Parts: sequence; structure tokens; C-alpha cells
Amino acid sequence: MPRSRQPDLTRTALLQAARQVVQDQGAALSLDAVARAAGVSKGGLLHHFPSKDMLLQALALALVEQFREELDAAYARECADHGQRPGAWLRAYITLTFEDSEKDMALHRALAPLTEQPTLMQALTDAQTFLLDQAEADGLSPGVAHAVRLACDGYWLAERSDQPRLSAVQAQHLREALTAWTR
Amino acid sequence: MPRSRQPDLTRTALLQAARQVVQDQGAALSLDAVARAAGVSKGGLLHHFPSKDMLLQALALALVEQFREELDAAYARECADHGQRPGAWLRAYITLTFEDSEKDMALHRALAPLTEQPTLMQALTDAQTFLLDQAEADGLSPGVAHAVRLACDGYWLAERSDQPRLSAVQAQHLREALTAWTR
Repeated sequence: MPRSRQPDLTRTALLQAARQVVQDQGAALSLDAVARAAGVSKGGLLHHFPSKDMLLQALALALVEQFREELDAAYARECADHGQRPGAWLRAYITLTFEDSEKDMALHRALAPLTEQPTLMQALTDAQTFLLDQAEADGLSPGVAHAVRLACDGYWLAERSDQPRLSAVQAQHLREALTAWTR
Repeated sequence: MPRSRQPDLTRTALLQAARQVVQDQGAALSLDAVARAAGVSKGGLLHHFPSKDMLLQALALALVEQFREELDAAYARECADHGQRPGAWLRAYITLTFEDSEKDMALHRALAPLTEQPTLMQALTDAQTFLLDQAEADGLSPGVAHAVRLACDGYWLAERSDQPRLSAVQAQHLREALTAWTR
């Protein structure tokens, strides 16, 4: 492996460790715990992330990036399985919405307060603009496209709130209704 | 007017004044400004609301109560105009979602940080349980009912976020698609 890739690998290892630590302990993590989990010295961690805020921000940005990659992958699978038909992108969005793991849920809750931070807010704005455009370009009527997208968002947010959540059966009915509207 | 009603009237006047002050100045309001706007002495205000937190909490609870009253009224109008048919409650919910005023938007944004407060959280939990039950009892299939409800919630939340919002035309398409699904 070329030596020039090592800083990237260390950074990736630190972000993976931070993710695990936040999942286990919430956003009030200690940098020592992250360095230890990554097998990196504290100085090595501080070289990549000079403060806890910068580490958490990088982690949140990585999650936004991961979401887009997962969405691309789900869309590719949907097209491979059923062809590149109208509604394929929204069906991928539905899949991702309902299959997001419980672990990620804890992570998103812990990082939610960061969304006021300018760099992260810009990344979320870009992601949201991308989602609006993709939904409209999916070959369905715009009203249907936004309705399906927003119902997914409403569900996703409600699942991450402290408010009453849908049962597994209700969620399954919801998923079927949304999928039917994309066909 | 019977004398025993006066404390209620003063309380209502104070909440109305607080609402106006929060709309104009955000949640960092001064109690003096609220008392002045209500035409009540500072002592009179403190008798009803011993602290700013208690005033803001009462205002938030009043908004939850107002939402339920407006929803009842919209449902009664829908039934009067088109009969008590399946989907009537969700059509009222759609109406309320899309006709919520810009003023209320500023108010909700200012009060949003209060939702972690236990009394308010309980009121929101009760309201959410009520909405889940009402949606399911509306005579449509459960999946459709929750999809329409959650798309409304997703839209309402997105409109109150700092993220890109739908244009007026997109919102109109969305509203038409959701309404069509309730028929």
C-alpha cells in the first residue's frame, strides 16, 4: 500500500472509532476513548481533528456522504432488479428510509444538535437540494414524488423523535402504500 | 361579566401578548414587554406566570391546544361541505398543514427548543397519539392514512427548517396529490 495513503487510512480509522464511541456513549465522548479505539496516539488524533467539535463535525459530514452513497447503491440495485423505470429512485429512497439500522438511529440522535453548525448545515442544504431534484426527475408527477419523499422524511424523523412511533405492522403498511404510489 | 372569570381573562390576555412579542422578538422576550403589551402590571404577570420559562411553556401548551381546536374546526367544515366520508379527517389535516400562517411559523421556530421540557413533551406525546389514532380511524387503509399524515408532517417540518423549501407550485402539486389519495 503506498505510503501516501496512510494519513487517509488513519483518518478513516479515527472516524470509524468515533462512530462506535458515539453510538455507545453519545456525543459527550472523550477523545482519549476514540484514540484508544482507533489504536492511534492522542497526538495522532489531534493532528487530524484538533478538537472534539471538529471530530464530531467530520463524523456528521461522513454520515451525510454515506447516506448519498447508500442511496446510489440502493438505486443501482433497484434498476438492476426491476429496470430503470419511473419511480425507481423513490423506491430506493423508501428502501433506505425503512432499512436504516437502529444503530444509525442512536448516532443520528447524538449528532442532531450539530446541525446548526455552518459547514454541516451547508452539507445538509446541498443534500436536500439533491433530494428535491432527484425526486422530481424520477418520472412521476411532481406532487406524487414530493409526497412520497416527504412521507419518508416524516417517518424517518418521527422514528428518531421522543414521540409515539408506528408499530412494525403499521410501518409495513406505510411502506407498501408508498411503494404502490411509485408504480 | 362575573368577577370570577377575570383571572382567566388576564391569563388569556397575557398569553396573547406573549405570542405577539415572541412573534416579533423571538423567545428571548422580556417579561416587561409582555406585561406592557397586555396592559397588566409586572406583578400581575408574575402572579400568573412566575418565570419566563413558565410563560413560554404555557404559550407552547396553548399552541398545542389551539392546533387541536383548529383541526376539529377544519374537520367540521370538511364534513359540512362534503359529508362525513372516509378521508374527511385527513383532508382537514391537509388543509391545516398547508394553511398554517407564516406568523405561526415564526412562533413555532422560536418555541421549538422548549419541546424537551417534560410537561410540553407529554402534551406533544398525547397530541401525537391522538393524531395516529384519528388517522387510522378515518376509513382509509392504514398505510395510506399514515402516508398522508406523515407527508403532511414532513412538509410542515421542512417548511420550518433552514433547508431548501418547495416552491408555491410544488407545494400546490403536493397538496393535490395528498388530497387525491384521501378519496
